[in-house]
Amino acid sequence: MLVSASMKLVILTLLVCGIGFSQPEGCIPSSLNIPGAPYPCVYADRRVAFRVNAPDAQKVQVRLGGGHDLTRGSDGLWTGTIPPQVIGFHYYTISIDGAIVADPATRSFFGGGWWNSAIEVPETDGGYYTAKDVPHGEVRQRWYFSTVTGKWRRCYVYTPPNYDASAKSRYPVLYLLHGWGENEHGWHVQGHADLIMDNLIAAGKAKPMLVVMDNLNAARPHEDASLYNARSIIARRSLADVPPPIGARPAPGQAAPRPAFPANFGETFTAMLLTDLIPMVEKTYRTLPGRANRAMAGLSMGGMQSFQTVLGNIDKFAYLGGFSGSSGGRGGFDPKTAHKGVFADAAAFNKQMKLLFLGIGTAEGPGTKNFSEQLTKAGIQNVYFESEGTAHEWLTWRRCLNDFVPRLFR
Amino acid sequence: MLVSASMKLVILTLLVCGIGFSQPEGCIPSSLNIPGAPYPCVYADRRVAFRVNAPDAQKVQVRLGGGHDLTRGSDGLWTGTIPPQVIGFHYYTISIDGAIVADPATRSFFGGGWWNSAIEVPETDGGYYTAKDVPHGEVRQRWYFSTVTGKWRRCYVYTPPNYDASAKSRYPVLYLLHGWGENEHGWHVQGHADLIMDNLIAAGKAKPMLVVMDNLNAARPHEDASLYNARSIIARRSLADVPPPIGARPAPGQAAPRPAFPANFGETFTAMLLTDLIPMVEKTYRTLPGRANRAMAGLSMGGMQSFQTVLGNIDKFAYLGGFSGSSGGRGGFDPKTAHKGVFADAAAFNKQMKLLFLGIGTAEGPGTKNFSEQLTKAGIQNVYFESEGTAHEWLTWRRCLNDFVPRLFR
Repeated sequence: MLVSASMKLVILTLLVCGIGFSQPEGCIPSSLNIPGAPYPCVYADRRVAFRVNAPDAQKVQVRLGGGHDLTRGSDGLWTGTIPPQVIGFHYYTISIDGAIVADPATRSFFGGGWWNSAIEVPETDGGYYTAKDVPHGEVRQRWYFSTVTGKWRRCYVYTPPNYDASAKSRYPVLYLLHGWGENEHGWHVQGHADLIMDNLIAAGKAKPMLVVMDNLNAARPHEDASLYNARSIIARRSLADVPPPIGARPAPGQAAPRPAFPANFGETFTAMLLTDLIPMVEKTYRTLPGRANRAMAGLSMGGMQSFQTVLGNIDKFAYLGGFSGSSGGRGGFDPKTAHKGVFADAAAFNKQMKLLFLGIGTAEGPGTKNFSEQLTKAGIQNVYFESEGTAHEWLTWRRCLNDFVPRLFR
Repeated sequence: MLVSASMKLVILTLLVCGIGFSQPEGCIPSSLNIPGAPYPCVYADRRVAFRVNAPDAQKVQVRLGGGHDLTRGSDGLWTGTIPPQVIGFHYYTISIDGAIVADPATRSFFGGGWWNSAIEVPETDGGYYTAKDVPHGEVRQRWYFSTVTGKWRRCYVYTPPNYDASAKSRYPVLYLLHGWGENEHGWHVQGHADLIMDNLIAAGKAKPMLVVMDNLNAARPHEDASLYNARSIIARRSLADVPPPIGARPAPGQAAPRPAFPANFGETFTAMLLTDLIPMVEKTYRTLPGRANRAMAGLSMGGMQSFQTVLGNIDKFAYLGGFSGSSGGRGGFDPKTAHKGVFADAAAFNKQMKLLFLGIGTAEGPGTKNFSEQLTKAGIQNVYFESEGTAHEWLTWRRCLNDFVPRLFR
């Protein structure tokens, strides 16, 4: 073998020493850390401790709901503990003498248009999104060509357990969209949509179905593909700051980050979905036909996209969900004119749309609840779901999905 | 919509300004950049320009085959151009006042036990690993429980085009392993194994087959799972330096980074593969039975693992490949005793093993060529493949796979 005895001794020594001082007592490494990284770690009271190796830096901060200064120790490592955090998945970054970067101690996640860090503050009842001893479906990477955009695209398709073995079964389909600055990985990487589906199906709470997770970005050849680009260019240029991802909590007293939508937001994606994606899915997989077997939902900007697509095409979908994002019409909502009058005849709408689901975290403000109440007042049946104590973050969206999916295709 | 006219104007202005100065002339953004990021970019002569936003830093370096100082501009952005690089995928990091981090301008890749940056210096004949207008297979995420490790594991399974539609076809299987400090994503993310397979199958150069990409890490419940951990802990502790990933080129005059193997290297993975992985694959997918339909290959440490597994179990595999990693026995190779004497009867070995493939980059030194010659001298048939001009990096391994796969299951 290539490993000499002396090398083994060095490694062993480092390991033993590492174990000796690596972790403050009672602080459990975040499940999102790279293998073996002791920091960031989470205390029982949900304070989070960080450590950054920046030997020659003058100032090091953790940026999570505002900036938190770390302190340089005599060993040259910067450490600090931030106040108790709410449960869930939180994007964060570190600042090293003004450079905003990912913390090398955690896995990197695509959010806000780039690859940043995250911690997971465990939920005591988080079993619904963890891998259990139940039958597991697959998440399949699928390449397909879009005639609308003129480009190859990639989506991920969740197929339920035993999809291959049940060669004669056909399934309904949920089209599930990420938020601004994320991509087709969001739902199964940050959101654990596959494990949520596995657990719901195993418990008999959800019908077996396909879940198609595509990328919300779509531009025709002559259109500006700036959905990410605006932010990316800004991020690379700005000397002042890089705004946090959409799924990050704002600093106290600050507004939540708001995406910059391109002029063509929504329309091209809807065209691509109807022209390319759905036909490809229904040709490639064993699907059930028609609107009664199609649902669409999304988070944040993906929720807005879902409302725009489905409410403009209710002949094609019977189930609709918006998680922390739905209709742009909250402020001056007029049921007679909103979304080209689709709500004007409430009885007709209710007969067509089998589910209109609105989900939100209680820390996100009253907008969605108000919208639900306005719909109800206009006679539009809808389900309003609240995630207790959570903000515009992935835990809200995992909980939304977990509540939404059992209501589909009944 | 949520976007006001004034917001649109701001965005448009930033975009226009960004486009105006974002790119030095003739410098093409790396294909691995986040959407819209103008840097890093590659010139026609393969020099690479970088830009880092670190307004208050005293020293910023790019670490790619040694450290390269960047220069602070009057706008506070650090820029620099490094000498011509060889073609291919290169991991790199940046150093900001001594903190070793990923460059936020690129996608992040798991290598060296953590998530770091990479550039792609394009190969003029790199079409074999790009998405073309050919039928595409799927890469499927598959969870399974390992009785050997006592844990849930995840692998990815490439299924060839029309796997679902050809419901009666059965396929041979290639087990394909990543290198040290990488994981089950390596081959299809960094390596584009799926696209290489699609293109080979479409051209009639390879038989349709399954490719199983698992994680090389496996520890029994009582064993030290330190394959990554040693490096991670070292990386988090060291004030001096973080060693580059295994797939990174060393600085001139320095030795290539060498992994620290745990004491249980190889044995537990082999047990897990034979006890859990292969039975799961052959139960879950439509596979062809027996050793004539099983191949195993890997890169670097995964090549060593493949040699250890296959040469210890030639009743179970008929094809073996090592890409920049094979047998530990190069130095004092004795065909009579190496690998428990499996080579001792050359005629018997040649009859059993339908392919013994050794691949290497020409910049990696003569070890593998010498080993091939020693095998030949001992009467052991083997295929020796050289990747011209490349080092211990992913382009070597893409080329190895592209040469290896057409030789399988003939």
